[in-house]
Amino acid sequence: MNPPRIVVVGAGHVGLYAALRLSKKLNRNRAEIVVIDPVPHMTYQPFLPEAAAGNISPRHAVVPLRRELKKCRIVSGEVTKVEHARKTVTIQPIDGPAYEMEYDHIIVAPGSVSRTLPIPGLSDRGIGLKTIGEAIYLRNHILDRLDVAAATPDEDVRKASLNFVFVGGGFAGIEALAEMQDVVADALKYYPELDPKEVHFILVEASNRILPEVGPEMGAYTARQLAGRGVDLRLSTFLQSCVDGRIVLSDGDTFRAETLVWTAGVKPSPMLASTDLPLGPKGHVNCLPTLQVADLETNEVWEGAWSAGDCAQVPDLTNPGGYCSPSAQHAVRQAKVLADNIAQVVLGGAPKDYRHKHVGGVAGLGLNKGVAHVYGIKVKGYPAWLMHRFYHVSRIPSFNRKVRVVADWVLAFMLKRETVALGQLHRPREDFTEVTPPVELPGEEKVGAGAR
Amino acid sequence: MNPPRIVVVGAGHVGLYAALRLSKKLNRNRAEIVVIDPVPHMTYQPFLPEAAAGNISPRHAVVPLRRELKKCRIVSGEVTKVEHARKTVTIQPIDGPAYEMEYDHIIVAPGSVSRTLPIPGLSDRGIGLKTIGEAIYLRNHILDRLDVAAATPDEDVRKASLNFVFVGGGFAGIEALAEMQDVVADALKYYPELDPKEVHFILVEASNRILPEVGPEMGAYTARQLAGRGVDLRLSTFLQSCVDGRIVLSDGDTFRAETLVWTAGVKPSPMLASTDLPLGPKGHVNCLPTLQVADLETNEVWEGAWSAGDCAQVPDLTNPGGYCSPSAQHAVRQAKVLADNIAQVVLGGAPKDYRHKHVGGVAGLGLNKGVAHVYGIKVKGYPAWLMHRFYHVSRIPSFNRKVRVVADWVLAFMLKRETVALGQLHRPREDFTEVTPPVELPGEEKVGAGAR
Repeated sequence: MNPPRIVVVGAGHVGLYAALRLSKKLNRNRAEIVVIDPVPHMTYQPFLPEAAAGNISPRHAVVPLRRELKKCRIVSGEVTKVEHARKTVTIQPIDGPAYEMEYDHIIVAPGSVSRTLPIPGLSDRGIGLKTIGEAIYLRNHILDRLDVAAATPDEDVRKASLNFVFVGGGFAGIEALAEMQDVVADALKYYPELDPKEVHFILVEASNRILPEVGPEMGAYTARQLAGRGVDLRLSTFLQSCVDGRIVLSDGDTFRAETLVWTAGVKPSPMLASTDLPLGPKGHVNCLPTLQVADLETNEVWEGAWSAGDCAQVPDLTNPGGYCSPSAQHAVRQAKVLADNIAQVVLGGAPKDYRHKHVGGVAGLGLNKGVAHVYGIKVKGYPAWLMHRFYHVSRIPSFNRKVRVVADWVLAFMLKRETVALGQLHRPREDFTEVTPPVELPGEEKVGAGAR
Repeated sequence: MNPPRIVVVGAGHVGLYAALRLSKKLNRNRAEIVVIDPVPHMTYQPFLPEAAAGNISPRHAVVPLRRELKKCRIVSGEVTKVEHARKTVTIQPIDGPAYEMEYDHIIVAPGSVSRTLPIPGLSDRGIGLKTIGEAIYLRNHILDRLDVAAATPDEDVRKASLNFVFVGGGFAGIEALAEMQDVVADALKYYPELDPKEVHFILVEASNRILPEVGPEMGAYTARQLAGRGVDLRLSTFLQSCVDGRIVLSDGDTFRAETLVWTAGVKPSPMLASTDLPLGPKGHVNCLPTLQVADLETNEVWEGAWSAGDCAQVPDLTNPGGYCSPSAQHAVRQAKVLADNIAQVVLGGAPKDYRHKHVGGVAGLGLNKGVAHVYGIKVKGYPAWLMHRFYHVSRIPSFNRKVRVVADWVLAFMLKRETVALGQLHRPREDFTEVTPPVELPGEEKVGAGAR
């Protein structure tokens, strides 16, 4: 008899940690673990702001699946359909025809995507911060703007290039803004043409507070800290449009900005709509505290289907009636319980409930600056920044990767961090096609001529 | 009186080294040095193959202009016209209107671009290796192909993904092929689905030898070395077409390949045609051995105009009747003489001739493998590889950068090099636009509706 097959849909925080733990608990005779993701690495999202700032190399802010999940089978593709009724997923590989795969257990963990609003211009101008590609693009785009501003004779272009708008004052937005403001302040030392006073970082936040994850007191501290660094905080304000870089805010202000970062929350992956699993009103998969997928009205368990993380609605047992927030903290801990529960079930046991009280958060706000509120203790400044770094190095999987990240930090500390834009990464074929005009095959040329 | 202005067009090997040396020789009261380049860094091209292999971080294979040329004025833009008759350049900044700048001396050093041929499909499929963007794209593209091959159920896609074609057996091509073959061999350890025998690296070279820079004996050694590693060498062979990845060779062979690297030589930058300087038949700027631009028929010197490197035709005084080959070796040494000559002229002296006998070359062929032929001494294997690394670390400007490169090597040695693809770097906005449909401004919507 073949061992049961466990299919993991998505290799984010949940997928990676669950697969890693399962592969340690169940050897190959006990279970076959298949991890399906179009991207060959997990993205350690809490490090994206530091990667954008250049403190961590892009490749060190991700976890290569094949290197860390040696006992799992890795499939590079997208799951386009889950038919749990017949325990089958449809896989669309990067290239070639789609095919089906059967399973005994499924971990549905495609995670979340940027939650955007129907704002004119946003599709053209917005930069998200969910992938390593976006983080490095943000870095190069912002540093490129300094070069544009320094070289242009056009005052309007100069101003627009030096306006950096961030929408969304949660964790991702504040960390990204704070890190980029910090790196731009560093970079400006090399730009005698630019006056630091010309550079404007603008935070647009719909609610009247920032960084709710660390509580009102630390949120207010962060706001003061950023304001002291010259950041322009627009609370209770919405972005109304940004067509061609013309920013229109709900407070009546309007100006041009060449940079618009969108970090106003996330929503469950839209791929969930292509499953026959029970979804909640916001598009999450409904789960029991055991992380088993279930119909919440009938409490009927969908045997063999599991979910967790940003895409799942998991009751928060420490806050009756509430649900776990979409955060890496919950995702990682849920992954552990999820893996243990599947192992239990495979070995004939019973699953346990997930119960974790969110302990607060710690955020880096640029080099040597941070804020934290964990286990009821409030910390700010340098100690909070150290906590931020220690915490995430302890969290990122594998010793190898921890050494790489620390080495990056040491190097940046000793040699000053690099502030040069590598914009060519994002348009790699431009130079070549510029000097290589297209040539048609002789046969095609004739066909083309005949058709004309 | 203002000090004379020296405009440097292009910050490649010639531009960077000449500007660096000039700014040390002439302080701000003696000369104003303006360096114009659309890219904010010099690309240390000899490191591109190692950057593609992942032994060096992308940002460490380049030299940030503003960090290394602190005494120069950096202008991020393209020189679209040189009118030496009135000593004026036209600068097109990255954004904003073009403008003119006058000069007293000009160093014309836009370097070279890929020399491509009118081959059907080349514009669509070819990957050059002149920029850091191309090097990292090549890396991610090749590693991505392993993921494609491992996941696809389509045999044809699998085969095409595992065929890697390199056209051009000179320095750049051989180093790139050897490094990528080496890194793929490393990566395959993580791909139990792929048999190393399925992977084909194919070198297409029009002449009957490879690596002419190290002489026939060492070239033959390199060919044997590569053949021993399974590389398929096609000498005296041309690429005839590569439409949609269907490779057609002049030896009659035809097959599909998803990777086509084009390193078949370089030609002078086409921007030279927008100057009023005297150009040779191949598009080079004609120079005297003093690196002064000159009309070669009349020997008339174009006072104040200088050139060197890949874009210049400089008589090789060690080989009467010949010209210096386009190589980093000549470029760097010419830059030194060029800077000294300008400093001499500015201070009232006379320029000296450039005279350097090409000393041969040293090439890395993957980790711990190399070949060298310098000053008549032939070296191969590990010692040659060490020479390659020592030589280039000694050459790359600034102590800071040397430390970074060595740190990268040490890290890759201790922790094994990373072989994961970061393809998202090259399509950074895809995820965001996928979840953000375009929305028109209310006004525009009406116009659109009316027009329909």
